[in-house]
Amino acid sequence: MSASPEPVQVRMAEYPTGMPDSSTWSFSHDPLPPVREGNVRLRVSHLSIDPGMRGWITPKKSYMASVRPGETMRAFGVGEVVESSFAALRPGDWATGFTGVQTEAVLPGKTLRKIDVSLAPASAYLSGLGMTGYTAYFGLLDVGKPQRGETVVVSSAAGAVGSVASQIARLSGCKVVGIAGGPKKAAFLRDELRLDAAIDYKRESIPAALAAAAPEGVDLYFDNVGGPTLDAVLMQIKRHARIVVCGGISQYGDLDRVQGPSNYLQLVTQSARMQGFTRLDYLHRIPEASTQLLAWWQAGQLRFREHVVHGLESFPRALAMLLSGENHGKLLLELRSGA
Amino acid sequence: MSASPEPVQVRMAEYPTGMPDSSTWSFSHDPLPPVREGNVRLRVSHLSIDPGMRGWITPKKSYMASVRPGETMRAFGVGEVVESSFAALRPGDWATGFTGVQTEAVLPGKTLRKIDVSLAPASAYLSGLGMTGYTAYFGLLDVGKPQRGETVVVSSAAGAVGSVASQIARLSGCKVVGIAGGPKKAAFLRDELRLDAAIDYKRESIPAALAAAAPEGVDLYFDNVGGPTLDAVLMQIKRHARIVVCGGISQYGDLDRVQGPSNYLQLVTQSARMQGFTRLDYLHRIPEASTQLLAWWQAGQLRFREHVVHGLESFPRALAMLLSGENHGKLLLELRSGA
Repeated sequence: MSASPEPVQVRMAEYPTGMPDSSTWSFSHDPLPPVREGNVRLRVSHLSIDPGMRGWITPKKSYMASVRPGETMRAFGVGEVVESSFAALRPGDWATGFTGVQTEAVLPGKTLRKIDVSLAPASAYLSGLGMTGYTAYFGLLDVGKPQRGETVVVSSAAGAVGSVASQIARLSGCKVVGIAGGPKKAAFLRDELRLDAAIDYKRESIPAALAAAAPEGVDLYFDNVGGPTLDAVLMQIKRHARIVVCGGISQYGDLDRVQGPSNYLQLVTQSARMQGFTRLDYLHRIPEASTQLLAWWQAGQLRFREHVVHGLESFPRALAMLLSGENHGKLLLELRSGA
Repeated sequence: MSASPEPVQVRMAEYPTGMPDSSTWSFSHDPLPPVREGNVRLRVSHLSIDPGMRGWITPKKSYMASVRPGETMRAFGVGEVVESSFAALRPGDWATGFTGVQTEAVLPGKTLRKIDVSLAPASAYLSGLGMTGYTAYFGLLDVGKPQRGETVVVSSAAGAVGSVASQIARLSGCKVVGIAGGPKKAAFLRDELRLDAAIDYKRESIPAALAAAAPEGVDLYFDNVGGPTLDAVLMQIKRHARIVVCGGISQYGDLDRVQGPSNYLQLVTQSARMQGFTRLDYLHRIPEASTQLLAWWQAGQLRFREHVVHGLESFPRALAMLLSGENHGKLLLELRSGA
């Protein structure tokens, strides 16, 4: 028997039509099922607040099944094993996987990946050393195929995936222009990530600022936002440019009225491509990405910025922050002190 | 001195804001310059009426320079050499190139390609054996990379490029669904091009008809139209689908208010790509395409449907027909009897 307080779950009560709000969520205090053969009980320490969450709470087809009304909200998390009937994970071990938005979870051990909290803090396995890092790594390198000397633009460049993608582009020998909102984020891009140029879209016109920062045109655009930013970059792509569509967070508020890129015919005139991807395409190459990301991080060549919000009760507010772009860095919900 | 009637030119008087109309064009009867060293004089027999023309008469950046107000309208044509100071083309030879919308042209011989009107009629070198055929060939095969057994959808499938792309998809061992407007075009797709299914978008809802014709989903979409058709197909693409953006004729009426594909985030959920191209990317491979297209045509495996409008004075009407989708097959303007 555990001495933990009563487990708490955040459930999706109903699909939101625009931005999720208080009517989207309900809280429950249901007991956990017993830990049967092959399962473990995990005490969750951190949850990843992820743009993909908006896609999970729509009845529309997506790359993963929708969360159904009444179900515990899906989330990726890390936590400590407190009880186990699965040989490869013992109490005291740490692991990461789809824990859901809850304080404790009973999960099949084979859906979890063991992590080493002596190499890096548990939270890093949800940011640069986890899904966030893999998304940036495979999206930029595999889909975008940057070449040394090319000009790369990254939107939401101070965000979780964008900040890692920007740095990997720099490590690939590219000139990197980051787009973010507000002077603090722009300064972060220039001073901490050491990008070649930063555009503050709240103060500057993106077309003019982009023409000034990259008069030679754009070879590769790593897009996290869609909307007018995507349209502005499309007008300045070079021949054979690649647009990596990682997400479209400017459009997630209302997925029934997405603004498509009206300048998409630039793909024809510039013989360019726009390509999407999901992390599911690269599951078999996670060991490669893990090793490389950890090596860069240990060498001080890659920084992960985390924005931590505290307490399970803050989940609705944290997701709203993410969807309105208020976070700065990878947004994490911390449920208890990490390792 | 030639005994031809006075040469006539169609000039672009001013850039249209929406659909080109009578104020867009003016006619002139200017004498031709003398045929200097390296030049030839061509009597034009046929002109290709091409969707790309809409892009040439906008001040916006495109894959070719804009036609400027007062200039003779750009067009690709075929004709007979009537005078030459260029060794490789002699009077009586036939050639193809950018002749402009005019009855006669004096052009550098090196910008022309000699054609053999004993193998195929002159007009075929503007349709399936010319640019139209090359566009379908490289777009479908090189950009789209069809695999045997895949499901391919082609829009504007009864049109010039679409009808060739559909047939090449069939010759590649794919299941082919063509989309066109009206019962006559739909019957043409089924009965003459022998596609697996035809959708008449004027009578049927594309999403429902597509779900019925290709319940397995779409692997490759060759898009000539953009707009709601592109959005409908995006919702039914399979994982790793390819969308070849050849054109967006539904949007050419008003290039300042293009409707972007609002379902483009399907590229993310399906790990798919959308890629444009121009014929300029493949100039070095024209001999390969010419040989293959001629071989298929001679073997009766490829049919080219031509829609011929007569007389230079019909150019404005012909272009309007093209932009409103009234033509059926490759639209050509015939200026005099061909070979």
